[in-house]
Amino acid sequence: MEYYWDTIKPEVRALRAYSLSADRAGVKINQNENPWDAPARLKAETLRRLDSRHWSRYPDFVPASLHARLADFSGWQAAGIIAGNGSNELIQALLMVTVGPGKRVLISEPTFALYRQISNVLGGEVISVPLDTELNYDNSSLQDAVNDFRPDVTIICSPNNPTGCVLTDEDLRALLSKTNGLVAIDEAYHEFAGHSVVPLLRQHENLIVLRTFSKAMALAALRVGYLLAAPQLTAEISKAVLPYNLNAVSQTAAEVAVELYEDELRPLVQKIINERERLFGEVSRIEGLVPKRSQANFILVKSAIEPKRVFGELLKKDILIRDVSGYPMLLDYFRLSVGTPEENDLLLSALRDIFG
Amino acid sequence: MEYYWDTIKPEVRALRAYSLSADRAGVKINQNENPWDAPARLKAETLRRLDSRHWSRYPDFVPASLHARLADFSGWQAAGIIAGNGSNELIQALLMVTVGPGKRVLISEPTFALYRQISNVLGGEVISVPLDTELNYDNSSLQDAVNDFRPDVTIICSPNNPTGCVLTDEDLRALLSKTNGLVAIDEAYHEFAGHSVVPLLRQHENLIVLRTFSKAMALAALRVGYLLAAPQLTAEISKAVLPYNLNAVSQTAAEVAVELYEDELRPLVQKIINERERLFGEVSRIEGLVPKRSQANFILVKSAIEPKRVFGELLKKDILIRDVSGYPMLLDYFRLSVGTPEENDLLLSALRDIFG
Repeated sequence: MEYYWDTIKPEVRALRAYSLSADRAGVKINQNENPWDAPARLKAETLRRLDSRHWSRYPDFVPASLHARLADFSGWQAAGIIAGNGSNELIQALLMVTVGPGKRVLISEPTFALYRQISNVLGGEVISVPLDTELNYDNSSLQDAVNDFRPDVTIICSPNNPTGCVLTDEDLRALLSKTNGLVAIDEAYHEFAGHSVVPLLRQHENLIVLRTFSKAMALAALRVGYLLAAPQLTAEISKAVLPYNLNAVSQTAAEVAVELYEDELRPLVQKIINERERLFGEVSRIEGLVPKRSQANFILVKSAIEPKRVFGELLKKDILIRDVSGYPMLLDYFRLSVGTPEENDLLLSALRDIFG
Repeated sequence: MEYYWDTIKPEVRALRAYSLSADRAGVKINQNENPWDAPARLKAETLRRLDSRHWSRYPDFVPASLHARLADFSGWQAAGIIAGNGSNELIQALLMVTVGPGKRVLISEPTFALYRQISNVLGGEVISVPLDTELNYDNSSLQDAVNDFRPDVTIICSPNNPTGCVLTDEDLRALLSKTNGLVAIDEAYHEFAGHSVVPLLRQHENLIVLRTFSKAMALAALRVGYLLAAPQLTAEISKAVLPYNLNAVSQTAAEVAVELYEDELRPLVQKIINERERLFGEVSRIEGLVPKRSQANFILVKSAIEPKRVFGELLKKDILIRDVSGYPMLLDYFRLSVGTPEENDLLLSALRDIFG
């Protein structure tokens, strides 16, 4: 390689780029999105507020008016909230201020791939505790790992992507008390579990909560996420958050989404939960498929037919799912996002064909 | 402090947060924005293309269609282009894959504050070469620093914020040949200089160019920037760029801006250049003020009255400028973004009052 190649860190050069197949289909259930579009009222009100806004002018240095609404919405103080360009950006900021060579990040896999990716780029060591044989969090192994490895940061996705399992409040409290480090709970899917760990922020100053507008809030196109923690922690994490990180359109849409949540979005969340339970029941009746109970808006399914083949057969029928067989422990699994009732009917019919 | 405080890197705790005064005024010339709004055609066409777009669906994993348009626009290959959430995000990605403890970043100050901020967060060492006494790049000192300190990355803002000076192609070529590291040129203001170093990418594989849509392109509200470099370099830098980093609205607006540049935006750039020259002439006629020649859309001005006082007096007259007296070497300076002709007239009249 060229002489300047040495400037790229070896741990970066060793990484494979994170990527996603570019397949498209009429029934798109591969990214755990809200299957309905953002409500028309949300879109119209966002555009109305932006109508007189100059596109040539920077957004707020810090999106303070969104922080204030998120404080009301979440029940946590605005001084302890950071909104960002998707929760990904905030995971990155958290890791930038804590992780470098000699630092340890504890995760429990299979889980969202980005925790490991960013920790590696930053030169940290990743400690991975496998889920148990039922693909649930293994609390005693997690606690042992905290004792043995003394991680600087522990990141748990709950409900977990792609398995749908949750860490109970009791288990989280045990982790928070045992560790000398920070514990981040990625609550991307919390609305579908009807549960949040935000109330624990009051007692646990080493807890960090991450949330997103890309799932229940139906704004994946706009990339908004937020982080909640003690203000003295968010003050430090903010030092790795870029100024003007949230564009004016996304900030406005997020404000409107919070205002309209009860009227417009919560009913969609309830429909998705109902459909998840229906889908679980129907899939479990198909021979060759074993779905796993989920608290999120997707279902992990064990398949008697190779997942890659199921993926291909469904794509021929214009249905795009996620083949997760490359994840540790998930050789025989694929993941289905919960779609609209009509999409779920199409999916079930296609699965019955393939497995019939 | 609490036990978990040690998880925050000491170099982060030592940093002051980067911030900006939240003052507002009718004449806003503090952020080097395009003083006109984005053209109506650009806004209308962007909204038209988004009309049927579901907000609940993720944007492209990588904004490939924007990359293709940027390739045509810039004269560089799409495989060597990364678009991001403002050029800030791409500066950060570049530094994440190159900088850590033991790594060196060379900059020339006073300059844009973020290069130092991010390098510090990542634990790198910042080597700073002062501008010369005329506030221009000091090429021989830069070359000496490259020899003496062997930086992994050199970042030069050209035209430079906040001084408006440029690094000549000849001086850049000398740096590129002398260093064993990477050289990044931040071209945020290149349209106002009528010059770009993109053609040098063909001969210099260690050159990286950064650009933004926040200045000439009139899209600061939407946060779009891009990075150009050899494809083998962008492949590595991409590993620190978050998936879905560019929201769907901003991606679409950037595509439209590129398509309409010649018809709609270039005429605004020419007006700004004309106004910059007029403003320079008029300010130089005010006793107590010495403007510096600029290749950007702002002018640095040496002031016989304390800059903080000038800032305050202008704010009373509904004009918001940037007090840059906290920057190294700039104790007696403030910075004026070039506004519309009417805004510049208001500014000149106010300055004549204050200094009359």
